[in-house]
This record gives sequence, C-alpha cells and structure tokens, in this order.
Amino acid sequence: MKCSVQKDKLAESVNQVMKAISTKTTIPILTGIKLTAGMDGLTLTGSNSDISIKSYIPKLEDDRENVVVETAGSIILPSRLFSELVRKLPDENINIEVDARLIAKITSGRSEFTLNGLDPDEYPNLPVINEKDVFSIKKDLLKDVIRQTVYAVSLSETRPVLTGVKWTLLDGKLECVATDSHRLSERSVPVENGNTEDTREMVVPGSSLNELSKILDDDDDQVVDIVMTSNQILFKSSNVQFYSRLLDGNYPDTSRLIPTESKTVLTLSTKDLYHAIERASLLAKEERNNVVKLRAEADEVEISSQSLELGRVFETLRAEKFEGDALRISFSAKFMMDALGKIDAENVKIYFIGPMRPIIIRPVGDENILMLILPIRTF
Amino acid sequence: MKCSVQKDKLAESVNQVMKAISTKTTIPILTGIKLTAGMDGLTLTGSNSDISIKSYIPKLEDDRENVVVETAGSIILPSRLFSELVRKLPDENINIEVDARLIAKITSGRSEFTLNGLDPDEYPNLPVINEKDVFSIKKDLLKDVIRQTVYAVSLSETRPVLTGVKWTLLDGKLECVATDSHRLSERSVPVENGNTEDTREMVVPGSSLNELSKILDDDDDQVVDIVMTSNQILFKSSNVQFYSRLLDGNYPDTSRLIPTESKTVLTLSTKDLYHAIERASLLAKEERNNVVKLRAEADEVEISSQSLELGRVFETLRAEKFEGDALRISFSAKFMMDALGKIDAENVKIYFIGPMRPIIIRPVGDENILMLILPIRTF
Repeated sequence: MKCSVQKDKLAESVNQVMKAISTKTTIPILTGIKLTAGMDGLTLTGSNSDISIKSYIPKLEDDRENVVVETAGSIILPSRLFSELVRKLPDENINIEVDARLIAKITSGRSEFTLNGLDPDEYPNLPVINEKDVFSIKKDLLKDVIRQTVYAVSLSETRPVLTGVKWTLLDGKLECVATDSHRLSERSVPVENGNTEDTREMVVPGSSLNELSKILDDDDDQVVDIVMTSNQILFKSSNVQFYSRLLDGNYPDTSRLIPTESKTVLTLSTKDLYHAIERASLLAKEERNNVVKLRAEADEVEISSQSLELGRVFETLRAEKFEGDALRISFSAKFMMDALGKIDAENVKIYFIGPMRPIIIRPVGDENILMLILPIRTF
Repeated sequence: MKCSVQKDKLAESVNQVMKAISTKTTIPILTGIKLTAGMDGLTLTGSNSDISIKSYIPKLEDDRENVVVETAGSIILPSRLFSELVRKLPDENINIEVDARLIAKITSGRSEFTLNGLDPDEYPNLPVINEKDVFSIKKDLLKDVIRQTVYAVSLSETRPVLTGVKWTLLDGKLECVATDSHRLSERSVPVENGNTEDTREMVVPGSSLNELSKILDDDDDQVVDIVMTSNQILFKSSNVQFYSRLLDGNYPDTSRLIPTESKTVLTLSTKDLYHAIERASLLAKEERNNVVKLRAEADEVEISSQSLELGRVFETLRAEKFEGDALRISFSAKFMMDALGKIDAENVKIYFIGPMRPIIIRPVGDENILMLILPIRTF
C-alpha cells in the first residue's frame, strides 16, 4: 500500500472511526484502525464489535484531490498513536507507505514515523447487510429523536433490553420509546420510504445512538439512510457508515403505562420551571434522594426542597393555565430536569392523576413527544 | 446583617474567594465563605489556612450602585452551595438578611433560600500585615514571571522548600528561581519601589502562585502591590487581597548549578523545535521514560525516539545557527517541552557541554530568562 492524503480529511476520518474504538477491548486487533487504499480513495474502519464505523475519503471531492493512491492495499495501525500523530504532523500532505513486513512509513514535511502495523487479514469482517429494507430520515430530525429518547434508557444491565431504545417502523412513521422503568420517553417522526408492509421492530443500544449522534455533523440537512436486518442496523450518511448490533429480548409493552385520564393539568413556561427545579435541587442533591416537592393551587405553583443540615428553598411560579384539582406531589429533580431539558417548546403541559401515579409531560403544540416520570412518596 | 447586592458582582467575588476554599479541609468553618457587610460595601473571605483571599465589592463603582447595606454584620455560609446558588438565582439583584439565630434568608425574584449559617466570630483572623515593605509589579509581568518559573517547582514533599519559588528582591529587581533538582527556571524582572536596603529573600509556595495567577485578570495593565513579612506575603490588586504563607527552610544555592562554559550552541526556532519534540514524544511516552534523542552536526539537527513495540520516529530541523562541536544527547521530552512552551521569543539558544552535563535554554534577545534541564544517560 502506498498513498498520500490531505491531513485535514484524514484527521476528520480518524476522528470519526475513533468513536468506535475502545482501548479496553479484549481483542487486540480492534485497538487498531484499518486503512484500505483503493483506486477510488481511502477507507478507514474502527470497531469494538458492538459498533463499527467506516469512513471513506473519496479521491476527488469538490474538484479537490484528497487522496493519491499509488499502490492499493490495507494495514492496521495503532489507533491512539495514529490519531495523535495525524493531528500533529507538520505538513498538509501525509504519505503512507507499507512494506511487505507490515511496517508503515508515514512522512510529512521533515517528520518520518515508522510504525509496526498488524495484518489486515486478521481484522474481523463487517456484517454483510442486504440493502433491501432502507428508509431515510433527515439528519437533524434523527439527532433530535436520539436526544429526546436516549436519556431515558436504563444504565443498569439487570434488564439488558432496557439499555436500548425501541424503534417501531409503521405506516411511514418511526416511533421511538425508551424507559428505565422509573421514567419513559416517547417520540415519533415521519420517515421517507418507511411504508413497510409489516410493522418492523428493533431495539437499538442507547450507547450506539449516543456515538452515532456525535458523528452526525450539524451543518447540513442531508438525509441518513437506515438499513435494518434481524440483528444489525446500518446508518449511512455521506461518507460515513455506522453499524450497530441490535439488542435481543422482548421489549416490554409500554403503552399500558401511560395513563389516559388526568385530575390536574398545568401549563407552564418550560424554561422557568426548569430553572426553579434546578435551584431547588441545589439543596435537594445534598440530601441523598434529590427529591423536590411541587404544590399547585389555582395558578400558584410552588417548588420546594429542604435539607436538615443546610436549610430550605421555596420557588414560586405562576402557571400559564391551571385545570383541575389542587395538588401536592414529590419527584426526582434530576428526572424532571432531564425531561424538560429535551423539550424545545416554550411551554409544557404537565398531567397529574394523583401523588403516586405517573406524571406526563408534553410540549405545548407537539403531539409527537411524551415524557413520563414516576413520583416519589414523601407524605 | 441585611443588604442587597448586584448578582454579577457577587458572582465574580464568590468565584475569586472560592479559589482559596478546599472542601477537604479539616477545619469545618473553612468550608464556608465569610460575608461582611459594612457601610462601604460587602467583603467576602475564603481561606484554606495556606492561602486566604479577600474580595471587596464597593458600594459605588463607576456611578453604579453595587451594594446597599441596611444593617452591617457578618455571616459564614456554606461555600459550594452558596456559589452555585448565586450563579443560578433568577434576578439581577440578590437580598441577604441574617437573623439572630444565624439563619440567612436569600431572596432573588421569586426564589427564597433559607440557609443555616455559622458564627463569624469563630472564623480565623487573617494575618495582620505591616504595610511598610511594599513593592509593586505590573500585573501582566507578574503573571509571566509566575508562568515561567512555577512549572519547575518540585511536586514531591520530600524537600518541601523545593515546592516553592525562591524570590529575591535586590536593587529594584525581583529574581525568581524554581527547581525540582532535575530542572530549573530563573527569571528576573524590574519592580517599582524595590530598592530595599538589604536583600530580601523568601520562598513562595508554587500552589499559591498558581492560584494567584488565576485570579489576576488579563484585561488591564494595573500594578499589583506586594507586601512581605517573615512568614506571609500579601498581593493587593484592585479589590482583591491574596494572602499566602511562605515556606520555611533553606533554599539551595542554585547559582553553582548553572554552567558558564559550553561546547555546542544551537539557535533554533522555538515553535519548530517544540513541535518536533512533541511528535517524537508520541512514541517516547508509550515507553515509560519519555526520552528523546537529539543529534546535531553542522546545522542539521535530528530529534528521534523509538519504542520496541510501536516503531520509530525521526524529525529533522535546520538550526538557524550552529556553533561548536557535533553532539548527541538524550533528555526528557516533557521537561524540554515544559521549558520551550514558556518561551515567547521566536528563537531559542540552547547551550550544551556534554552528554551528562546540564542543558541551558535561553530565549534569543532576553537575558532575563534562563531554563536548565538535566540530560538522561542512554548511550
């Protein structure tokens, strides 16, 4: 293998595939980055066996020559060292030459690195995915969906299936649900080419979605193509391919958790409520449970918290609208802030049934988002 | 005590005094911030017994009313909670009212905090300092001196006096020296009113200088007044007073460590040399010692490093000027980068005597700075 590549393009690609590489892997070859020079350009691959990322640097792009390949070939290079090195090389152009003993000579300006590589034939193959079932979603919409659901997945491995987000594709809509059994988040979005004959269901690991979100840049409204198989999902965006395994196991039916009635409905400014709870939680988090109390009567809403050692806090808010009965309820400040922080709408509607029944939070003006948290018994 | 204060001024002052407060202190009252409202304004104090910081918010400043004091008085409030709270309060104005039971009611907008305070009479007194021996130094110059010397102090407590920077005031000049016995840094600066009759010497803890540097803002060229006593030093800058204890013990005589002769003198671009060593250290730091080699012959300088497992790196540089004999020497990449990173001049002169004798680094065009590192035996 012999090629030269533009430093900025290589650094960008290395940065993307590094998101899949773990230094804690038990498979030594997976601590490396795979480089493959072909006649069309250079492809980088990183993997931790749960997720794999492939980043492609095309030979030509916007009339600019990114890569010149003299001899095609592959090599595995130590990822951490290679990524630091690429960022720090002095020249805009980087030459990579690999000899038969798998030794890579990397030169740039007056720098010369000689790195011991590993055999690319020993690198695991990426899953082969049949691109029959492809649907598409706008990149910024995909990032929103991830942000608004993934925070609610379980971080505990006691029920592994709850560490993922359940995706259901039906009638041109993708419905996403996450729950850790104390709270839940649900969001649905329209997708392109999503009119499958049957309902498709899968559980995507939360950690994969977090990494995916990081490599999707903000600066365009391109679409992401999504391919599903029974145990893998592939996301394709411009020059990046992101593979993730899916989670096994039956995801619980969450629909019956969501109450349809309500006794009190409050409409509040999302930001004001968020900040009032944030301040109340300054005291609440010094206690172990981080619990705040909410009392509502007419349009007067009071958030309070106390710590025996430190003191007390009272926050008062005026509700935009108050419907139903007066109410006293306690809940986790963190859970409420997690939910409110994902809502972009100016106002939220909060639905209460009773002090021990689920609280439902919905942005005013958007029926596609629902968040649920369970209250905490304190009185 | 009863007063109201502008949030931004209070937040700034809290931020300053927090730098002196440690949550790991064994004296519980020192985890608090002391607030003292007087007729001229509000004073905040934080201390960890090694350093103490006093920040003063004047009643009036630039025609703006910062503080309104209704009743003078003092209180100690829990520092971490109070600092988070001040930043997050909703209104631009914060009211503080302390009752006879030392309970502070803090209100802002529709937020109301009730905090349990501690008795200000139990707070330790700050050292009383006789302001006879005062000299002054420009703020930006003081920050430079700290940056260019403090990095070389010892981090080990085996010889406590080496964890400080030795300051010598003589003939209107302040000379600062730091060494951890493997490297040394020396810088002298002119000061105002520094013509003391006798030489004054003191050892200022490196950690104090680091904290001091953080609270000196960049945005003006004011002077800092410095008052010395036998066991304390006080820095006064606009509305902040910074007290530090001094270190006991005899500081070693470092002058005899600095060689006066040299066999090879290289003049090199500071930045190019820094980056070449930085790249070579990518491999060197994977080995335990982080050692790089330098070979110079005529104006050809080669920096290299190798790791048995990973590979090798060669960097070549052209010296601006080469004087003396050809040379091979090894040294710590970290120590050399620490020194070069503190030099602002475009070029440096490096003086060598032999493979086991000290290396001297000086910025070209500034006789007031000298850095020394010991080489490492590798061949």
